[in-house]
Amino acid sequence: MVSKSEFESDFSSKRALANTVVVLSHTSHPGNIGAAARAMKTMGLTELRLVNPDVFPSDIATARASGADDLLEAAKTFPSLADAVADCVYVVGSSARGREFLGETMNVRSACATAVQQTAHGKAAIVFGCEMSGMTNAEVLLCQTLAYIPTNDDFSSLNLGAAVQVFAYELRMAAGLTEGYDATSLQPATQAEIENMYAHLETALVACDFYDPQRPRRLFARLRRLFGRTRLEREEVDIFRGICTAIVHHGRLPR
Amino acid sequence: MVSKSEFESDFSSKRALANTVVVLSHTSHPGNIGAAARAMKTMGLTELRLVNPDVFPSDIATARASGADDLLEAAKTFPSLADAVADCVYVVGSSARGREFLGETMNVRSACATAVQQTAHGKAAIVFGCEMSGMTNAEVLLCQTLAYIPTNDDFSSLNLGAAVQVFAYELRMAAGLTEGYDATSLQPATQAEIENMYAHLETALVACDFYDPQRPRRLFARLRRLFGRTRLEREEVDIFRGICTAIVHHGRLPR
Repeated sequence: MVSKSEFESDFSSKRALANTVVVLSHTSHPGNIGAAARAMKTMGLTELRLVNPDVFPSDIATARASGADDLLEAAKTFPSLADAVADCVYVVGSSARGREFLGETMNVRSACATAVQQTAHGKAAIVFGCEMSGMTNAEVLLCQTLAYIPTNDDFSSLNLGAAVQVFAYELRMAAGLTEGYDATSLQPATQAEIENMYAHLETALVACDFYDPQRPRRLFARLRRLFGRTRLEREEVDIFRGICTAIVHHGRLPR
Repeated sequence: MVSKSEFESDFSSKRALANTVVVLSHTSHPGNIGAAARAMKTMGLTELRLVNPDVFPSDIATARASGADDLLEAAKTFPSLADAVADCVYVVGSSARGREFLGETMNVRSACATAVQQTAHGKAAIVFGCEMSGMTNAEVLLCQTLAYIPTNDDFSSLNLGAAVQVFAYELRMAAGLTEGYDATSLQPATQAEIENMYAHLETALVACDFYDPQRPRRLFARLRRLFGRTRLEREEVDIFRGICTAIVHHGRLPR
């Protein structure tokens, strides 16, 4: 059964993604529009807005979307960025350069956390300018926050699709959707089971003349250090005890 | 002057990136090798290793690398994943599925944090399998950790270059290189300057008959709430005081 708080947290995660729009302004290459749609869909974003794209719709965009064509089909086109973000309560511009912007700047992680908070009140927009020159100065002035992806000073140019992927990923993480598959889950061993294993191990290592309790030389401290890090599972304890039994038995066979 | 701790932190960030290698195993499309090289270089990673690529070197890879050809030229090719990671102290496999893996699994953020810790002791590897089927089961067994990028359950397939971009970004963040450009930095106003502004504002709003101190109706509580959030700068305080002076003066002109 899902608890109330889990339900609420699931609801607010979904609302955060549903209320975040990606705006691509003056995109030159239709392939990048497709790559952006694919990146968005992998992270659960659904609403793509386009400002004056050079070529759209386009088969190249559809091919690069690799199955995210529903986002392309639903994408609305606007004559200006002001129109595209008119209904949004928070507008973040993705920019590789700080420019003459006097406003707030922060990295993509902080900006996505802020955007997710603002989606409680309405739509948030993440804006990406054209591939070569980014947003125009007039577009930058429409943004409340400029956000950067930290990069190598000597090579800072991410592909547009890659930049959208990083923002979309950070939005999903900020919305609390940080989980994926789990490891095959086995039962952890109890402390008593582990202590019994150490006792059995001592018997076996004495039996095979590897260990002399009169001259311990920190062997068990080292073994405890190793096993302590591993968070032993019951099945693993059983394997080791089986090996210990075999060692003890082996020493009793006629040579 | 750079303090000792800043120097050490800068050194350990650089070591973390220099000691992390990206391994692409059995990549089908040379364009994806180029996209991976570009993604790595934007984040300051330098060492690309290839296991049995279908086509390499390739002009398509070089074109998609968009200036990261130095990484392609330096890329070493290996006959098997075991060879490619033989010198590494930590191996993370990027996998979209949990599979029959009994080992440790975590999301990309946690895996990159762990990898950065391990780079203090030697090289860490992030492994990506082939585009269509991912790593083979034999390759998965070579990994100490399987890491996932959290995705939309219904559409979980990131492009290989996009997946490398997210891992490379998280490695850079985990290495502590979270900064980019700063906003144009202006001098914050002091508390006294701000209180003087409120006093001046009261005079001006009384002068223009907007505000009656006998019937305050929470106006200044609201204005303090607004300005309190903005962390006012001295230049902004000066602008408001200029407006207040103009309002007071305006009321004194003959109508």
